[in-house]
Amino acid sequence: MTQSIDEWNAFRAKMNDRIFAAGNLPINRFFRLDGQTYEAGALGEKTKELMGLVASLVLRCDDCVTYHILEAIKKEATDEELLETFAIGLIVGGSIVIPHLRRAMERVDEARGRA
Amino acid sequence: MTQSIDEWNAFRAKMNDRIFAAGNLPINRFFRLDGQTYEAGALGEKTKELMGLVASLVLRCDDCVTYHILEAIKKEATDEELLETFAIGLIVGGSIVIPHLRRAMERVDEARGRA
Amino acid sequence: MTQSIDEWNAFRAKMNDRIFAAGNLPINRFFRLDGQTYEAGALGEKTKELMGLVASLVLRCDDCVTYHILEAIKKEATDEELLETFAIGLIVGGSIVIPHLRRAMERVDEARGRA
Amino acid sequence: MTQSIDEWNAFRAKMNDRIFAAGNLPINRFFRLDGQTYEAGALGEKTKELMGLVASLVLRCDDCVTYHILEAIKKEATDEELLETFAIGLIVGGSIVIPHLRRAMERVDEARGRA
Amino acid sequence: MTQSIDEWNAFRAKMNDRIFAAGNLPINRFFRLDGQTYEAGALGEKTKELMGLVASLVLRCDDCVTYHILEAIKKEATDEELLETFAIGLIVGGSIVIPHLRRAMERVDEARGRA
Amino acid sequence: MTQSIDEWNAFRAKMNDRIFAAGNLPINRFFRLDGQTYEAGALGEKTKELMGLVASLVLRCDDCVTYHILEAIKKEATDEELLETFAIGLIVGGSIVIPHLRRAMERVDEARGRA
Repeated sequence: MTQSIDEWNAFRAKMNDRIFAAGNLPINRFFRLDGQTYEAGALGEKTKELMGLVASLVLRCDDCVTYHILEAIKKEATDEELLETFAIGLIVGGSIVIPHLRRAMERVDEARGRA
Repeated sequence: MTQSIDEWNAFRAKMNDRIFAAGNLPINRFFRLDGQTYEAGALGEKTKELMGLVASLVLRCDDCVTYHILEAIKKEATDEELLETFAIGLIVGGSIVIPHLRRAMERVDEARGRA
Repeated sequence: MTQSIDEWNAFRAKMNDRIFAAGNLPINRFFRLDGQTYEAGALGEKTKELMGLVASLVLRCDDCVTYHILEAIKKEATDEELLETFAIGLIVGGSIVIPHLRRAMERVDEARGRA
Repeated sequence: MTQSIDEWNAFRAKMNDRIFAAGNLPINRFFRLDGQTYEAGALGEKTKELMGLVASLVLRCDDCVTYHILEAIKKEATDEELLETFAIGLIVGGSIVIPHLRRAMERVDEARGRA
Repeated sequence: MTQSIDEWNAFRAKMNDRIFAAGNLPINRFFRLDGQTYEAGALGEKTKELMGLVASLVLRCDDCVTYHILEAIKKEATDEELLETFAIGLIVGGSIVIPHLRRAMERVDEARGRA
Repeated sequence: MTQSIDEWNAFRAKMNDRIFAAGNLPINRFFRLDGQTYEAGALGEKTKELMGLVASLVLRCDDCVTYHILEAIKKEATDEELLETFAIGLIVGGSIVIPHLRRAMERVDEARGRA
């Protein structure tokens, strides 16, 4: 990985603040709405984060994958649950997902504090 | 919708048989693997179908959306769960998902026997 | 085209109402935000609709292309402006855009009342 | 299929003419360039059409799939070659390709004159 | 950002020259056609660059986003116009666009000479 | 390039081992199936690798492009064949492919031991 989770988080926070300060109303509303969509409802927060993860895998967005892995782990997702989510992303999205899966696995290990 | 669920199922079954009979080994193995990926494990079958649904929405595949709606309903997904899955697909995938959401909503109503 | 513009509009309106009535808050907020994003600001409404059109072309969404063509024409976009927008969509998105361009051209002619 | 190969060809020819007559220079140059790219060179015409087919499958464009199947068959591609091309499209692009594979198989049968 | 705008420009120029020297005719014609598509016509150059920008955002190509930001700024696009273009890219393309928006905002600041 | 071919290969091998050791059955089966799909059949190994390359270009996956370039060169693909494959990827996928083409050309030169 070019960036550690801490570096990734720092850039994310800095630029979110920068974008918010720019004051475009639809963009700022979109950011708030994005957060609300993952709040617990009929489906729990962990399930919603795993859904965000599978969507990020098939759309092949490493930053989004990192984000949803970290959130899913905060909501106590196990390695088995993460791997089954990876499997669905892989079968739906195809071998083009594999490079993202390698980086996702590394992120899980980093977040768990495994070398 | 151009096809009812019954017509959709009939074409799907007919062409799956036709492809299987063609005898290409990697294709046939892929089809089997596809089925295995959604079997219950650390995550339940309903959750996995809803994950397949969100992946199908962001990749904007109406046939795949129809398939996972039908499977999720068989596994007793409620309307609220389906709608929250739609919401994640919409926020992740953007307004480009909306036309697929319209058809997805119509499929849910058709599958529930609502006019 | 399988649907005329009138049929397309009728299905769109019916299902938008159906989705709104389902009462999922993030989905309903997204729909409102979608409308606000195209309101006049530093860029005019016509320019914003043509931008929505080019995004729809490269993402290859026929329904979205139809929608933005109709809106752009309401905001007095000329054929030349529409064609230059098509050209950008084609060069950015590649030959995979061509089938959508054929249907887009047909929609323009239909909206202009040309046979 | 909603359209037979003959109907598909007729719409394609009609709208290509319509777009050409509209006189946008970059679009018309793109269409010519598109044709030149598949001419024989270090790689033969059949191989190039099969490459166009695999690209069309992973990008999930039914019209493009139909076009390259018809061209590949004109260049004497066998069923085995078409199926191996399908297999690569499926493994690279994932299960999201499957609905397009069903329609592709039907197109091959239609083009071969098999019921 | 891993690369400054200057480093990005240098790699771009070097590899464009390398590709041109390789002498593949369709590739070289495509590069020329790409430039012609953004020339002023019924739509002005600034509008066309902003259209290229919105297409690049929804297709999530950081290099293309950087290119069109730089060109739009050369054609005197304001921050407000860039932000409204970002907003359309975000609403059409969804939250998956957000990481690209962070890098795009940083590029705008870098191009404007803001720390 | 941020990574040399050797560094790229080392990360790829390490993470493939890590994923395999995690023991998710569908993922491990997918990896094996991926390899089988490119074995010689009615189409030769070189042709199949070039097909994997064109699919990777239009889906814009640099890692996949690197992989298939290296495999195609092992199967004795010439520069002309690689360039004609690039041309098809470019015309099908559009200008959005260009940044990937620059990195692909650099990879070919690196693999050939040129500058």
